[in-house]
Amino acid sequence: MPQNPSRVFASISPAEFFYRNRQMAGFGNPTQAVYSTVRELVENSLDSCEDARKRPEIKVEIDEAPSGIVTITVSDNGEGLPHAHVADSFGRVLYGSKYLSRQRRGTFGLGVTMAVLYGQITTETPVMIYTCTENDEAGRTYELLIDVEKNRPIIVSSNSVKRNKVGTSVRISMKGAVARAYDRVVDYLRLTSVSTPHSQIELVRDGEKQFAIHPSSDTLPTPPVSAKPHPHAADMELLRRLIKKCAQSPLQEFLRKSFQQVGRVTSSKIIEFLGMNPQREVGDFERSDISRLSTALQNFQGLGRPTIDSLSPIGEKPFMNAVLETYDAVDVGYAQKGPSEWGGHPFIVEGVIAIGGRLRKAKTPGLFRFTNRVPLLYDASEDVMTKSLNEVDWSRYGLTKSRKVGLFIHFCSTRVPYKAAGKQSVATEAEIESHLTLLYKELGRCLRRMTKVKKKRAQRIKEARSYSQQLALIAELGAELSEEDEVPSVHSLVEQLFEVNLDV
Amino acid sequence: MPQNPSRVFASISPAEFFYRNRQMAGFGNPTQAVYSTVRELVENSLDSCEDARKRPEIKVEIDEAPSGIVTITVSDNGEGLPHAHVADSFGRVLYGSKYLSRQRRGTFGLGVTMAVLYGQITTETPVMIYTCTENDEAGRTYELLIDVEKNRPIIVSSNSVKRNKVGTSVRISMKGAVARAYDRVVDYLRLTSVSTPHSQIELVRDGEKQFAIHPSSDTLPTPPVSAKPHPHAADMELLRRLIKKCAQSPLQEFLRKSFQQVGRVTSSKIIEFLGMNPQREVGDFERSDISRLSTALQNFQGLGRPTIDSLSPIGEKPFMNAVLETYDAVDVGYAQKGPSEWGGHPFIVEGVIAIGGRLRKAKTPGLFRFTNRVPLLYDASEDVMTKSLNEVDWSRYGLTKSRKVGLFIHFCSTRVPYKAAGKQSVATEAEIESHLTLLYKELGRCLRRMTKVKKKRAQRIKEARSYSQQLALIAELGAELSEEDEVPSVHSLVEQLFEVNLDV
Repeated sequence: MPQNPSRVFASISPAEFFYRNRQMAGFGNPTQAVYSTVRELVENSLDSCEDARKRPEIKVEIDEAPSGIVTITVSDNGEGLPHAHVADSFGRVLYGSKYLSRQRRGTFGLGVTMAVLYGQITTETPVMIYTCTENDEAGRTYELLIDVEKNRPIIVSSNSVKRNKVGTSVRISMKGAVARAYDRVVDYLRLTSVSTPHSQIELVRDGEKQFAIHPSSDTLPTPPVSAKPHPHAADMELLRRLIKKCAQSPLQEFLRKSFQQVGRVTSSKIIEFLGMNPQREVGDFERSDISRLSTALQNFQGLGRPTIDSLSPIGEKPFMNAVLETYDAVDVGYAQKGPSEWGGHPFIVEGVIAIGGRLRKAKTPGLFRFTNRVPLLYDASEDVMTKSLNEVDWSRYGLTKSRKVGLFIHFCSTRVPYKAAGKQSVATEAEIESHLTLLYKELGRCLRRMTKVKKKRAQRIKEARSYSQQLALIAELGAELSEEDEVPSVHSLVEQLFEVNLDV
Repeated sequence: MPQNPSRVFASISPAEFFYRNRQMAGFGNPTQAVYSTVRELVENSLDSCEDARKRPEIKVEIDEAPSGIVTITVSDNGEGLPHAHVADSFGRVLYGSKYLSRQRRGTFGLGVTMAVLYGQITTETPVMIYTCTENDEAGRTYELLIDVEKNRPIIVSSNSVKRNKVGTSVRISMKGAVARAYDRVVDYLRLTSVSTPHSQIELVRDGEKQFAIHPSSDTLPTPPVSAKPHPHAADMELLRRLIKKCAQSPLQEFLRKSFQQVGRVTSSKIIEFLGMNPQREVGDFERSDISRLSTALQNFQGLGRPTIDSLSPIGEKPFMNAVLETYDAVDVGYAQKGPSEWGGHPFIVEGVIAIGGRLRKAKTPGLFRFTNRVPLLYDASEDVMTKSLNEVDWSRYGLTKSRKVGLFIHFCSTRVPYKAAGKQSVATEAEIESHLTLLYKELGRCLRRMTKVKKKRAQRIKEARSYSQQLALIAELGAELSEEDEVPSVHSLVEQLFEVNLDV
């Protein structure tokens, strides 16, 4: 039998893979494409400002031509891109500056390239980039396309310009559906100002300024730094790579140098458990040795908590203030769980529970999800944050249908287990789930306290009002008796006595 | 300012991308890994048997060592792999034989490689492969690992063997959680026998045969053939590729040769609309010409239905019989919608509604999802099939909480818009959604008819029973009058009259 003629064997590039499966990366249709383009560009801008240790000033411009061509421009005051890396950063899938082990918004080297690709396949217009770093005497502009089959950039033009403002500006044209995406874009930017409260974000649509969100926090967060791997992440692949890097190290030194949370005591325990020679050079290890070492490291219990300087939680005050300001909430509470690790990747979960203001009424609190300071607006139902939320009996914490309650949950980690490349929902990992459950319960207790405080205050105002009325009568009587024309006011006296505001 | 030392620019291979984000491909934890390995290997085997036009005989073996190492072996009687392609097929991500435009189970060249990768990072054991094609005098065995950073296979061993049974057998060892995955594996295999009813599937666990599912259908389906692209799929990228293939063709000939549903009339209409010269060679087209042509093709209305020989729906009889047999259903109904296309990719949706038997009671029918004959068991809630199901008011079709009803929905297409690389749920595309809604409504009407028929039959049995009693009295009386000892039976007479079975 001859070979089946329909069997063609071939390798495809990652650009080709995501071109064919663009819905996986959040570019499935013209609505998603507009939303994801804004999102990916804003994320990159915020990361870049963080690297530059500057307060982010981000400008988003969306212009729609009568032909239906949408042009999206995002400009920032970040550190700019070194010229040697511009073409690959925008024109090569899975290329980026982000493969270190620390909390980042962008992680895959995929999002912005997908936006460029989407622009290209719908309008064949190249992406336009302006960028300039502190080290450059002049900025440069670029026009790029992508060779999808080969996964590499095509440089259409590259010019030095007079402008030398440090930062980056990116313009992408595509066939997009702005009308259908617009509300989500606005939600995204508002929620971004909650999770990055030190940023300034401006939105311009068809040349008209829509709004500018000003920072609700003065302090720039400490930038996260790259961390050593956690022993629980030591699968065979990682272990082999680490051994390659310091093949001449004796085992004990190797363990202490290569991993976090492994000092003299822990490394001795592991080595003793394995019955290995602590002085043996790891370069001499055979497959079976590495396999045993991997198992021991991944299962070792009793390690200290993972280091947290690779993480950047929003923090109690900035997070609460941002929610208060953005949603006019009446009261807020905060809780944080962790640090812990999933598969060896350190993480923290933190959350704000808020009542009143512009939050919606519901039996289950409205959920606003964030990962590494990025708001997630799609695919909520399969997210571990949603699943854990639904497992809590919120009525126990005094939640009824008639109450306005919102939950703002931030999961931050050196690696987020997104369910898909479009980064819209987080997969269920046991360790993450259990920490979320603890977090929700603590936020539930916050809610109960807020409810009690509110009830107490209401009671106190009631008492004060009735006392005030009686005191007013006495004052009137006193005035009458003393033949004074003016009855003295008891209002502020009562307010001081009861420590309440009677005008509420 | 010196460049930020934390900025390291690098490109990663697709193998590295999926190694880091393995949860996206269905390999997030030891439970998923067992399930996905079985699934990916079985899918490949079924595809291979289809290519060989043989009735699939698939054997799945799962062995768990006391150490927790799980070994999964899947053997088939498919066409085998040409030796030149074995290493890349198992050791290179995004390499495969499946990039043609026709319905296939496997599509990405990702799944099996991920299983190999997972085995490697948890046990460092190479995948073992035996394969032999009709053309080979002898089979060969291979042991392979993957160079993750370079995305290429490492051949540990490769030997000719005496065995020459045509087919493929693959063995992967990993740290897996069989106990937690087992029920899903069983569900998966049973549902596979529903969507591929001509297959024979055997499951062996720890050396003991668990079950063998025999074919419920005799006929092998017609193998789908590769189709020309649909005009609605003509984005800039595709159009440029097609033009490259026949640069010297005049425009009209190019359109007719390159696309399905485009004949003389349609191509003339498109060319007239664009005001182009039908004789101009497409190789001479400039960017703006290609862009206009792309827009015109993607938006052209009034094309014929897409060709369906690239698709392989299960079909009314085989689908209904398989459900009847697998679920001991009391009654079933079938409906089909399409062919239509989403983004230029032809698709059909078909479904079976079943009542009674081993189906569960619920207000909304239990949903069993299939894409290209593959059962989907995870991530149901974000799937367009679930969303459309929930939009139907099932009470209108006589569905109550106390009824056992199941829906088996099959979406088949030359391209399935999976939400993630793990292929567990289908993204929402307007065209797919609207066809699903039509399908559900028709299945709802089937349900109502089945209900009516059932009610009518019950009524008829009741009437027959009462008639039978009276007739029996008359017969008794007659016997008495005629002084006969034996009263004649009226049972079969009544059954014939009423066309019912009174013993039910």
